Amino acid sequence: MTLNVNDLQTPALILDSGALEANLATMATLLPGERCRPHVKAHKTTSLARRQSAHGHLGFTCATPLEVIGMANAGLGHDLLLANESVDPVRLAAMALLVEQEKARITIALDSIETVNAAADAGLREALIDVEVGLPRCGVPPEGAGAIADAARTRGVSVRGVMGYEGHVVGLASHDDRTRLTEEAMALLLRAHGDVGGEIISAGGTGTYAINTWANEIQAGSYALMDTAYSALELPFVQALKVIATVVSVSPKGWAVCDVGLKSLGMDHGNPMVDGADVFFCSDEHTTILPHEGSPLKVGDRVMVTPAHIDPTVAYHDKMHLTEAGGDSIIETWAVDLRGW
Amino acid sequence: MTLNVNDLQTPALILDSGALEANLATMATLLPGERCRPHVKAHKTTSLARRQSAHGHLGFTCATPLEVIGMANAGLGHDLLLANESVDPVRLAAMALLVEQEKARITIALDSIETVNAAADAGLREALIDVEVGLPRCGVPPEGAGAIADAARTRGVSVRGVMGYEGHVVGLASHDDRTRLTEEAMALLLRAHGDVGGEIISAGGTGTYAINTWANEIQAGSYALMDTAYSALELPFVQALKVIATVVSVSPKGWAVCDVGLKSLGMDHGNPMVDGADVFFCSDEHTTILPHEGSPLKVGDRVMVTPAHIDPTVAYHDKMHLTEAGGDSIIETWAVDLRGW
Repeated sequence: MTLNVNDLQTPALILDSGALEANLATMATLLPGERCRPHVKAHKTTSLARRQSAHGHLGFTCATPLEVIGMANAGLGHDLLLANESVDPVRLAAMALLVEQEKARITIALDSIETVNAAADAGLREALIDVEVGLPRCGVPPEGAGAIADAARTRGVSVRGVMGYEGHVVGLASHDDRTRLTEEAMALLLRAHGDVGGEIISAGGTGTYAINTWANEIQAGSYALMDTAYSALELPFVQALKVIATVVSVSPKGWAVCDVGLKSLGMDHGNPMVDGADVFFCSDEHTTILPHEGSPLKVGDRVMVTPAHIDPTVAYHDKMHLTEAGGDSIIETWAVDLRGW
Repeated sequence: MTLNVNDLQTPALILDSGALEANLATMATLLPGERCRPHVKAHKTTSLARRQSAHGHLGFTCATPLEVIGMANAGLGHDLLLANESVDPVRLAAMALLVEQEKARITIALDSIETVNAAADAGLREALIDVEVGLPRCGVPPEGAGAIADAARTRGVSVRGVMGYEGHVVGLASHDDRTRLTEEAMALLLRAHGDVGGEIISAGGTGTYAINTWANEIQAGSYALMDTAYSALELPFVQALKVIATVVSVSPKGWAVCDVGLKSLGMDHGNPMVDGADVFFCSDEHTTILPHEGSPLKVGDRVMVTPAHIDPTVAYHDKMHLTEAGGDSIIETWAVDLRGW
């Protein structure tokens, strides 16, 4: 018996396999193999990472030690980059053990003496120097990168190169602004690379994957599933993930209520969109919607909800359902198995 | 060996047992026993519900079937109200089975013929009629409540009374506005109750727990843990839950970065607050903060983060750590075991 999306308990993540495969194939053509190091934080799902691997990307980017460990244990440990700082001795040691057991090659981002010492103490042996290129977040200023690299090498940590995320640029609406500011950011990264050395210059995201020709690998994550903000940027990727919800109440005053809410949607980018309706507001387990003229809803109807921000949406769910291309049949159900830290 | 909060892996939920007990004791004094039906959606933790039960509240409010089922299986099924509509036959049947097995008394909210039929078909036998009292969400308009009650009774479902949530009122800053609008909302609920009958008039929340003297039970949830929005309302409850984070990067330009972000915080009420720092912005796994003058941070330091909205924050975490009153020692760790639907 084939399971249909309308048989699913709601709320549930629905991934269109046609859209997913189109996104993965497009990226694999544009940035083949090692030119793209897909970021798993966007989907937190080893089954999806395995698809990306089948498209030729053997290296992956992770945001948390748990993502690294989960990828290694799923047999996807060919070349994992923790593009984040950690001073957690237990998690660092767990990653070092996976390297020792030859389950994974693991490279960690370092941006301070403290992170160098924590990685070295735990036995991790490969790193990138994380350089701040304009986003006020992690990363050593470019002029300090060489000293961190020296400190790492002194502690026996091999430095494979640099990374720097132009996160202040990836979402800009204007292509010209994105291009100009990416060039400025990458000039900072290349300056740091001159002092650091190594073969890797890792940067970028879905919004700058085509613009950023200075980095030799792009840490794009959102391209696989996409979301509303990125969809406004005229990128060659389509929205592949939605949340299916059930209408549980319809008011004679004109609104309807479906069973998706603040605990099944990332809300930092604002309200979701709902096919055939305007969104009024979200509560913990509800979204109140105003059905469009000619699209009345009744209790029990299903609606498809497009989250404004995919990454924190996926992190609320323990599975996602893959549908046949453009259809309603469920062909696979994947565990969202990289949640947590 | 005593575990200290600074030994915990981060991000992690930290619950001050002194603040929690004060909140629970205050509510148990003000609205003792059946006058308060604590809402578990705010904490999703049966261990915490057990504390509420020890304070004399034996009935509980739930927002999802999973919360009902989890409470019943935890031995807390004395009188569970699913204050929400469901037309999911599998989940409704799972709840009916718990009733049949005498593991729980379960009452469900009904606001339409469809929800009446779904509950009756599944074998559920007790209900409240959910009345819309001004919040544009679930609930039948007051003038339709009697008909839904009749339909339920015709299908063999016993109607215990009415519920109506003045969710448009609970967060208003002005006590006078809250009082006036609660009275208006409860006039609608009492009108419906006149048509429906039954002994229960269930309404209210933490923001109106003292104001709403028309309902005979209050569905307050947030009072146990509180959050930033409710803390502005001069209620006799204190913030008991924070997220502990580790500083992973410090910039010479003045900012620091800690490891709490969009995947460990509910963001619909905006940015969190951080003790000793201003919050600049949140990313998936980071919050960039500006330490206050005289409160410099270094890599490895711990910071306490107060989420703007507790409910969707808790839903990202699988456990919470209970500290001794006002101290740093962990005395218990509780599973957040009611997540999901």
